[in-house]
Amino acid sequence: MTDEIAVDFGADGLVPAIAQDAETGEVLMLAYVSPEALERTRETGLAHYYSRSREELWQKGKTSGHVQHVTEVRVDCDADTLLYLVEQEAGACHTGHRSCFYRTIDGENVGEMAFDPDTVYE
Amino acid sequence: MTDEIAVDFGADGLVPAIAQDAETGEVLMLAYVSPEALERTRETGLAHYYSRSREELWQKGKTSGHVQHVTEVRVDCDADTLLYLVEQEAGACHTGHRSCFYRTIDGENVGEMAFDPDTVYE
Repeated sequence: MTDEIAVDFGADGLVPAIAQDAETGEVLMLAYVSPEALERTRETGLAHYYSRSREELWQKGKTSGHVQHVTEVRVDCDADTLLYLVEQEAGACHTGHRSCFYRTIDGENVGEMAFDPDTVYE
Repeated sequence: MTDEIAVDFGADGLVPAIAQDAETGEVLMLAYVSPEALERTRETGLAHYYSRSREELWQKGKTSGHVQHVTEVRVDCDADTLLYLVEQEAGACHTGHRSCFYRTIDGENVGEMAFDPDTVYE
């Protein structure tokens, strides 16, 4: 028997969630998750997050179609960070890259383009 | 020519940093980084973070010896999250697991033990 982990959402009611490609292991993005976003993710199997700037729940890829099918949710030792293992449609980044982490801190572009952002977000 | 990315440390002066095994792609942990922690990481090649609870800079593995050799630092599209690609000595988690993400949210243990925590932290 295993017991569900109680996530520690802390003072602001949010935890960071890392989205990782379930197949390749590539880290795709980081966003924040509220209790409701986590619940919707688990209910639908599609990654949901909470936008701190827009102050609202959002489903990844709702507009672009670049949804994330969540195959597993993991929790870290302190239960204050989540790891979403996902199957990513097209690319995670609004710039058209497969991953949001497409640059080194020195500014070198090491990422792979997955779609044309001008076509998707017009 | 490439220009160094200006990291957006935001209101609290910290950004989350994901540590990922440079070889296997395993996500090992998430911790927070201050400007000083980032500077020390880049100067020494060893991962440094900032502890929000202890309110101090810390070098990962300083006590345990389980240091992280940072081979690359990446920045996300919004420049408010870092990705450390690391060579991890032994394991990243204080529980003895290789990764802090050793459990699913349903409480199933899917992680690999890397060391005996009773021996390391005595």
